Amino acid sequence: MSIAPPGQNYDYLQTAVALAERFGVDAAERDKRGGTPKLQRDWIRESGLLRLLIPAAYGGDGQPWSAVLRVVREFARTDAALAHLYGYHFLSLSAVHLAGSEEQKRRYYEETVKHNYFWGNSVNPLDDRTIGERTEGGVIVNGAKSFSSGSPDSDMLVISWRDRETGEFYKGMVPTRRLGVQVHDDWDCMGQRQTGSGTVSFHNLRLEDEEILVRPYAQDTAFSTLTPILSQSILASVFVGSAIGALEAARNYTTTKARAWYRSGVSSAAEEPSTQSRYGEMWASVQAALSLVEKAAAALDQIWAKDVALTQAERGECAVLVAAANVHAGNTALEITSRIFEVMGARSTAGHYGFDRFWRNVRTHTLHNPAEFKLRNVGNWFLNGQWPEPGYYS
Amino acid sequence: MSIAPPGQNYDYLQTAVALAERFGVDAAERDKRGGTPKLQRDWIRESGLLRLLIPAAYGGDGQPWSAVLRVVREFARTDAALAHLYGYHFLSLSAVHLAGSEEQKRRYYEETVKHNYFWGNSVNPLDDRTIGERTEGGVIVNGAKSFSSGSPDSDMLVISWRDRETGEFYKGMVPTRRLGVQVHDDWDCMGQRQTGSGTVSFHNLRLEDEEILVRPYAQDTAFSTLTPILSQSILASVFVGSAIGALEAARNYTTTKARAWYRSGVSSAAEEPSTQSRYGEMWASVQAALSLVEKAAAALDQIWAKDVALTQAERGECAVLVAAANVHAGNTALEITSRIFEVMGARSTAGHYGFDRFWRNVRTHTLHNPAEFKLRNVGNWFLNGQWPEPGYYS
Amino acid sequence: MSIAPPGQNYDYLQTAVALAERFGVDAAERDKRGGTPKLQRDWIRESGLLRLLIPAAYGGDGQPWSAVLRVVREFARTDAALAHLYGYHFLSLSAVHLAGSEEQKRRYYEETVKHNYFWGNSVNPLDDRTIGERTEGGVIVNGAKSFSSGSPDSDMLVISWRDRETGEFYKGMVPTRRLGVQVHDDWDCMGQRQTGSGTVSFHNLRLEDEEILVRPYAQDTAFSTLTPILSQSILASVFVGSAIGALEAARNYTTTKARAWYRSGVSSAAEEPSTQSRYGEMWASVQAALSLVEKAAAALDQIWAKDVALTQAERGECAVLVAAANVHAGNTALEITSRIFEVMGARSTAGHYGFDRFWRNVRTHTLHNPAEFKLRNVGNWFLNGQWPEPGYYS
Amino acid sequence: MSIAPPGQNYDYLQTAVALAERFGVDAAERDKRGGTPKLQRDWIRESGLLRLLIPAAYGGDGQPWSAVLRVVREFARTDAALAHLYGYHFLSLSAVHLAGSEEQKRRYYEETVKHNYFWGNSVNPLDDRTIGERTEGGVIVNGAKSFSSGSPDSDMLVISWRDRETGEFYKGMVPTRRLGVQVHDDWDCMGQRQTGSGTVSFHNLRLEDEEILVRPYAQDTAFSTLTPILSQSILASVFVGSAIGALEAARNYTTTKARAWYRSGVSSAAEEPSTQSRYGEMWASVQAALSLVEKAAAALDQIWAKDVALTQAERGECAVLVAAANVHAGNTALEITSRIFEVMGARSTAGHYGFDRFWRNVRTHTLHNPAEFKLRNVGNWFLNGQWPEPGYYS
Repeated sequence: MSIAPPGQNYDYLQTAVALAERFGVDAAERDKRGGTPKLQRDWIRESGLLRLLIPAAYGGDGQPWSAVLRVVREFARTDAALAHLYGYHFLSLSAVHLAGSEEQKRRYYEETVKHNYFWGNSVNPLDDRTIGERTEGGVIVNGAKSFSSGSPDSDMLVISWRDRETGEFYKGMVPTRRLGVQVHDDWDCMGQRQTGSGTVSFHNLRLEDEEILVRPYAQDTAFSTLTPILSQSILASVFVGSAIGALEAARNYTTTKARAWYRSGVSSAAEEPSTQSRYGEMWASVQAALSLVEKAAAALDQIWAKDVALTQAERGECAVLVAAANVHAGNTALEITSRIFEVMGARSTAGHYGFDRFWRNVRTHTLHNPAEFKLRNVGNWFLNGQWPEPGYYS
Repeated sequence: MSIAPPGQNYDYLQTAVALAERFGVDAAERDKRGGTPKLQRDWIRESGLLRLLIPAAYGGDGQPWSAVLRVVREFARTDAALAHLYGYHFLSLSAVHLAGSEEQKRRYYEETVKHNYFWGNSVNPLDDRTIGERTEGGVIVNGAKSFSSGSPDSDMLVISWRDRETGEFYKGMVPTRRLGVQVHDDWDCMGQRQTGSGTVSFHNLRLEDEEILVRPYAQDTAFSTLTPILSQSILASVFVGSAIGALEAARNYTTTKARAWYRSGVSSAAEEPSTQSRYGEMWASVQAALSLVEKAAAALDQIWAKDVALTQAERGECAVLVAAANVHAGNTALEITSRIFEVMGARSTAGHYGFDRFWRNVRTHTLHNPAEFKLRNVGNWFLNGQWPEPGYYS
Repeated sequence: MSIAPPGQNYDYLQTAVALAERFGVDAAERDKRGGTPKLQRDWIRESGLLRLLIPAAYGGDGQPWSAVLRVVREFARTDAALAHLYGYHFLSLSAVHLAGSEEQKRRYYEETVKHNYFWGNSVNPLDDRTIGERTEGGVIVNGAKSFSSGSPDSDMLVISWRDRETGEFYKGMVPTRRLGVQVHDDWDCMGQRQTGSGTVSFHNLRLEDEEILVRPYAQDTAFSTLTPILSQSILASVFVGSAIGALEAARNYTTTKARAWYRSGVSSAAEEPSTQSRYGEMWASVQAALSLVEKAAAALDQIWAKDVALTQAERGECAVLVAAANVHAGNTALEITSRIFEVMGARSTAGHYGFDRFWRNVRTHTLHNPAEFKLRNVGNWFLNGQWPEPGYYS
Repeated sequence: MSIAPPGQNYDYLQTAVALAERFGVDAAERDKRGGTPKLQRDWIRESGLLRLLIPAAYGGDGQPWSAVLRVVREFARTDAALAHLYGYHFLSLSAVHLAGSEEQKRRYYEETVKHNYFWGNSVNPLDDRTIGERTEGGVIVNGAKSFSSGSPDSDMLVISWRDRETGEFYKGMVPTRRLGVQVHDDWDCMGQRQTGSGTVSFHNLRLEDEEILVRPYAQDTAFSTLTPILSQSILASVFVGSAIGALEAARNYTTTKARAWYRSGVSSAAEEPSTQSRYGEMWASVQAALSLVEKAAAALDQIWAKDVALTQAERGECAVLVAAANVHAGNTALEITSRIFEVMGARSTAGHYGFDRFWRNVRTHTLHNPAEFKLRNVGNWFLNGQWPEPGYYS
């Protein structure tokens, strides 16, 4: 799986499918271990998929967000942590696209293509510990951020801080290896265990002015506020992909390992009518969630293409659809990943299968921000015609 | 709303929306009354929508099934009975398309365009009371069929019988007014009360040979077995349309009539956060079901276009998707049509609103054939790769 | 079924079972008709059950509330409207017990025993149209109250009004036939259609001082605030009884009328494994709800027996349990009354069976006051140890 | 917590509560570790609770099964594995009661009291690998059994085998330390990780005739077939206890660690209305399940007290109730243990809390035998009046 030459036509989906299969070989084992899936991250680097979304003008593949989300779902079938890391690579990179200058876009897109950078983030806007102090031609940042997904083994980080004087919230880009950046290996969670979503601390870290996003390009535009829509879209695809993967793993178990119940009157588990109807019901649920997620992805492509011409109404309509897709997909995935055991049976709980990781991953990730508040936004729009107020998570 | 000239370009969706609005004016009242919505059926006749699916070669509008289903959903927003009747008009007419000779197709399509026929059916394959006896150049049919949806006020009927000697199952086409056809006004159901799904009896009814489908055209082909897929597709759209309509009716009530609970601390019902999140949740569920139904409709368009070239595998794949969409949409609609009351409150149960008709319609129609057996088909395919065996309902 | 002599030992449960059976004969028909079940109300009068709760000291049977609720559930199995009317007879009568003087208790209890009064109410505290004006030795009441359940064919009414000067909320007792009381026949609802929960209007209605509750007995006590707990308890038993009745009606249909699906491979519907497991699941749900309702009823008996010695903490603990039982029972009943159709099949929707009335009754009655706010009370207690603030509905 | 003198009155519930609290201190940590909770098992030994059910005539406390189940629920609040082990101690011991001779009952009850034995089992009837060969005065057993819960650190084991010649299924009692018994440390499961439910293998293990149950006492009686009812009862209490424990752990987190969402408008998480109503809903569900489990436990006490006089009808009625309670409690626990995270938020997924163990334990244990088949038994009884056929699991 060598790197495809930039810009050359290649089948990204085929690449993603092949990678997902390789991830699946030891996904259960790596889930237990936690830490950083360095080898798998390098496979992603080598695959060329890190430039999938980068516009052709900057040497990327120029694919839309729906292509990224398609890959996220493919990865999530076997490894939801890697799916998250891959989606968040583009979430981080797109911060520059949404709120950077033309020079910044060019620089970071081109460098990413050239060096095949894998981006992580350390942005958590609810963690207020990080402070920036203006200095000649730049800023000095000190503090720490939790929930810094993808920071270990990243090449570049998007970070955030509050200005000591004004209290304003800033974002900037730094190479992860820069002096003053310390990525801590302190992520120990019940799910998404290889996302490295732990702490990054900053010790007199200096960013130059040109590394700071000040929204000159998309300031005060609807377009510059798309980050939560991107994030919710990525997570929605992680959820659906996890549900698909769980259902496929269960099928594989039912058809190859499960035994028919001794009083069922059938000779194989896969012939038991109630098992079939439960699979049918779960498959239908997953297809509904998938269809909604695909529709939301198509809507995202449309607003992304509008760039700064995007109106608040267009943003709002997409935000509602994406929020609905995110919550519905999350709920569907929660149900599927718990119910699969009922069609596999008692022996499927053996530790070496690691089938519980699907539920643990989804349960963890669906808490990223409260479904309740996303649903209120959707309902408020449906009832009162008000778009979600753009914010950190809406 | 005059008849658009055949073949002329017109916006069928706009027509459907306008009709649905007119249906809505007295839908609650007509639901209580039952009987035949003669006036509304005539509006459909006048609208030109009865030829929507008929190929342009025969003077129709040449639209795909997805267009028909789009209209069905639009109608179902205000009147699920009329939505059913409209969808089943094409279900009946398509029996000729699927299993008729080229002559029969031409004749019935062209006559339908010319006379603006509204088709009904009297086919129920599980009601074995109707017997045909071969005679010189035709057949004499006696007996009766229950569940003959759309038979009252129909111009044409597709009927079915078993041959007295061979036991074989036949279908044929007759003008409803022909001597020997008696449409009984005996439909009294808790839901779908204006579909006229009562009994048709046959008294020495004669059909000529050319009025009998003998599958010379599509015999033994996958294409000739599409009826249950069409039927499930129509019902799926009735379900989703009903759910959408229920949610819209609830919204209208919540924003104009409901009072905030005296301990809620808000001044209007539509501002109550829990009301908003419930609306959000319901809207998301409906969107998921709708997206799946749309995807299944697109798949139906594809296999319909293949005509006799359709393979069993292509039929099977579509059958699974349509069955999943049908069951999922039905379950979603059941939940929505029951839960809307929780966001409207006690006074919304007043009889004159008739809000319970949404649930009664969906509850009735989702029993058309058992969800359990459709789900087994889906699950059996997912587990064992077996397509649903073509039959009356699969 | 003649009136048992007061105080004589008789089996109230056997009486209730027999009455419920008689109610069931035409319950579906009466539901369609609406209006007042005069005949059935008279049967209840004749049965002696109207004095079940009245203390033996006043000539009643001296049974606890749990006995009343047991009868309510029995009635609700076949007729949820009559169950409601019966439970609310005691709810109204107990207003005197909770907040009347010893003289008032004696007078109304003894008169009820003597004349076999059936009590109704016209109290709706959220309807502010009724005003009382103090006058020499009494009050003159004018206005109207909606949701006056049981007012038609009642002998006595508990009514409420606000004092024109002080705005205080008062309750009093009047014979329904008194000049100035007008019971309107304007109840037309999608469910609970024979509860007569329409409007009562008051036209210069005079109540003497001794007909007004001023809480001299139980003023400022926890005991005087039990009305909402009684009301929620009665409704919880209506819900569970409706669910039990729906399940029994479905069983009767499945075992005597339903046909096995033609592809099920079994010869009778009741042998179909998936039908059995659904019945099993529904039965288990109903048993859980019933067990909780019974436990809440036992708790109610305990606090009722404490009389004015009742503490706020004891009231609070019971209020939480009753609220939880009410909401849980309501949700269970909603699910059961909708799902029964899945184990009966399409032909069970025929209008003459009237099986939809179970869902319509429960759906209507569960909206009496919002489940959301009851659940918040329960949750607030569980989280923060705060008892529900006594009020109209908590 | 010293051993209470046999027969002396002590408050077993207080003892259980205190033990549960001590289990809770490191339950999350021990769950991660797996293996045998030797220390905690010894605490149970020392507490005297191992003789709770043993009749007073044999020196035990003579408490009913409902007392055992009460302790099981108490333990499960903090440690579902220890709850399982404790319940199964009596399940194993009761094999002698149900199918042993009077001498066997006396011997094993008295020895258990005297030596404070902790019983485990190696009985799995679906694992056919173990064979017994008749020999002079006893049997020689070879083979292995999976799912031998509680075998590590047990003092006594109930084991089972099939007779090589007749194929008949036998059970017998052996000290775990006897030559020929090997307890393998091979239990690695996603849940119930400290139940030691791994393999026991038998190598020319000899049992004397008096160590073999041949049902002389209760042969062919309904009473001798109670094992699955006991087992389902124990599991039902593990489920409810786990749900209660999960809800309490969540409450503790919400009130002490959770932060209000930054857009919630409240200052503490426990004041957020939607959080309160979710807690209320969960609490109500758990109370319903608990009430049903308690009712089933009372029914079990009744049939246990009947001893060999028990009829098949009495057994059947209890079996249905226990099966319903088991499945309903399992489903409730599954939902609660997954939903608690929604009222705790993202940071509650941190690995050190181990809150996912509640779901993993319940998910694992609810698969002990298929809910589907238990529900069919319940439904078949409800529909057709047939009692569950006594068997390994019914």
